[in-house]
Amino acid sequence: MARATGTKRAILDATLELAATKGISGTTMDEVAERAGVAKGSLYYNFSSKDRLFEELLLEGVGALAEILRAARGDLRGRAAIEALVGALLDRIASNPALAKLMASEIFRTDRTWQKSLFALRHEALTVFAEAIAEAKPESRDHGTCGLMASSVFGAVLMAGLEWLVFEPERPRDEVAAAILDSLSGGLLGGDRPAPR
Amino acid sequence: MARATGTKRAILDATLELAATKGISGTTMDEVAERAGVAKGSLYYNFSSKDRLFEELLLEGVGALAEILRAARGDLRGRAAIEALVGALLDRIASNPALAKLMASEIFRTDRTWQKSLFALRHEALTVFAEAIAEAKPESRDHGTCGLMASSVFGAVLMAGLEWLVFEPERPRDEVAAAILDSLSGGLLGGDRPAPR
Repeated sequence: MARATGTKRAILDATLELAATKGISGTTMDEVAERAGVAKGSLYYNFSSKDRLFEELLLEGVGALAEILRAARGDLRGRAAIEALVGALLDRIASNPALAKLMASEIFRTDRTWQKSLFALRHEALTVFAEAIAEAKPESRDHGTCGLMASSVFGAVLMAGLEWLVFEPERPRDEVAAAILDSLSGGLLGGDRPAPR
Repeated sequence: MARATGTKRAILDATLELAATKGISGTTMDEVAERAGVAKGSLYYNFSSKDRLFEELLLEGVGALAEILRAARGDLRGRAAIEALVGALLDRIASNPALAKLMASEIFRTDRTWQKSLFALRHEALTVFAEAIAEAKPESRDHGTCGLMASSVFGAVLMAGLEWLVFEPERPRDEVAAAILDSLSGGLLGGDRPAPR
């Protein structure tokens, strides 16, 4: 999906800013028009309803994420592919926390008019992870578990990334990426160790 | 926090059912009273406002989760502790998907009146993971990264668990738990392998 420009861009940016503080249902079309500096007629000319407006905002966000992930992976394989995907998702969260929070809160809602199209695109983003995982662990493709493992890794980055931005923003990005990779590294499952003393 | 009973219980259950399909802002106090089968006076006697009602619902949910996690861990250490926590969180999500979805969508919102108390309890639930992680990987305590790793593992279980319930409900629970543990096992980071053929 091409990134919106001009009036559409201004409207989508204003919508995200408002939703970040007021939530989707707390945001009105009147406020969007005012914040974007456009007439209400122009707002409705571009987006026929509030539902359509949020649908396009979310689809643009998830679509852009899928493209970023595909580009980050490129031809990488194995560990390098997973590291690149974790880093790219983390950077995306950091570069647009408001959108990341909105996506996190919408990702499993089943009461939205835009549910179907969002699920499809969400699947596209997760598939980039699933493919890298299936390559790193071929048996996960046979068992059909690479999709669940993709969700698992995606959820790890999303939650740790938001934790970082909301509660520990002073921590350098590379430390956050390292902690996430560390949690996937098997060290937590490495068997019993004596307690530190 | 003691689990609410009687009228309070009926109100909280009705609230969760309504919120699962209509979202928090789409749910009105009138509907809650009707669904719970209580008079509006009784509703407001128990919960002075819709904000208080949702605050109590979320706090009860996160508080119960923290207790369940502490009990599941018990005296376990190392891999056994992490496995028990992953399994207990997954079971909790499966036993109450509506609450899990609501918590997932509220966990990073910063526009709610209940934000502060929810953050505190959320921290309590994550701390159970963080302590098990600090024991399994003592250096994570020194680096102060066990909290981020806890979020990472928690996010992995939450997202894979919801993915399971929403998209692959026919899959047995143990396969889901195994896929999550597999994603944490280091296999994804095990270095380059030849592509499967």
